[in-house]
Amino acid sequence: MKYCSNCGQPVSLKVPQGDNRERFVCDHCAKIHYSNPRVIAGCLPVWEGRVLLCRRAIAPRAGFWTLPAGFLENGETIVTGAVRETLEEANARVANLDLYTVFSLPHISQIYLFYRAELSDAQFSPGFESLEVNLFEEHEVPWADLAFPVIRETLEHYFRDRMAGSYPVHTRDIIVRRDPEGFR
Amino acid sequence: MKYCSNCGQPVSLKVPQGDNRERFVCDHCAKIHYSNPRVIAGCLPVWEGRVLLCRRAIAPRAGFWTLPAGFLENGETIVTGAVRETLEEANARVANLDLYTVFSLPHISQIYLFYRAELSDAQFSPGFESLEVNLFEEHEVPWADLAFPVIRETLEHYFRDRMAGSYPVHTRDIIVRRDPEGFR
Repeated sequence: MKYCSNCGQPVSLKVPQGDNRERFVCDHCAKIHYSNPRVIAGCLPVWEGRVLLCRRAIAPRAGFWTLPAGFLENGETIVTGAVRETLEEANARVANLDLYTVFSLPHISQIYLFYRAELSDAQFSPGFESLEVNLFEEHEVPWADLAFPVIRETLEHYFRDRMAGSYPVHTRDIIVRRDPEGFR
Repeated sequence: MKYCSNCGQPVSLKVPQGDNRERFVCDHCAKIHYSNPRVIAGCLPVWEGRVLLCRRAIAPRAGFWTLPAGFLENGETIVTGAVRETLEEANARVANLDLYTVFSLPHISQIYLFYRAELSDAQFSPGFESLEVNLFEEHEVPWADLAFPVIRETLEHYFRDRMAGSYPVHTRDIIVRRDPEGFR
């Protein structure tokens, strides 16, 4: 950030009164500009024991497989966002969402929340951001070609919990150095 | 937003190519400015069966009781943020955090995540944003003077779950009209 979004004049990094962190503060109108982590909402859609995965058409990790997920938008609930992303990326409709995995990725200031979900029917196709969409049995999952650690971990939890017959919410912090190529 | 934070020139609301929502886009440098929901991380600190509450010194809902919670900062995990807020608002140290309640408040584009936590000792005192901090048995909780619905619901879940001896993660969407006085 270089300029104030309120008045267009330059901003400086300083610690506002009563705060303990540097923020961008406008030199002219004194507006304080906050920047905060973003939320990614996603689904683990299941149809007759098979899980739905999308092959990414876009960076980062184009060509690798992922669960449908994306940035939560203003005015959405987390569930609404997860349902929308599943429709956008896989043209798939889901129901009965249950919160399942929660990840913090502090190096990129992102929070991921995945929901187990039932596909409403077996209709799906690649959306704008996907090359391919398909259903996979556990042994068919392209484990070596998954896009992000949060995808692998969510799938691993799912197949393990399915054996046990119980799906508690799993939470984990993923602590890695920032990767200039956009690794999540 | 009126001006581009990258180049200081005016922005306009338009739907960028490949997008389906209006964003602020710079008329000059074409930078797209996204705005996304914010995450509030908090704790339900417990000491010998009593819960810690803070009486708010600041708007919104000054004078009402709350659990320590606040906006997650860039570079933090959710747990780190919840621990920091508890230290800032109650000068209290917590350990063994377990995710407990998750709320979506789409009318104000906020996501709340509360963790059950153990107070590390019985030392606490009001931080800058608190008038008073205290421990409460269930029957002592100032139920009529709680600051926000998410606080009441988290406390109600806790006392009910404690009777049952099991603390599953609870999720709920809180759908209300926007209140101009800052009701959460």
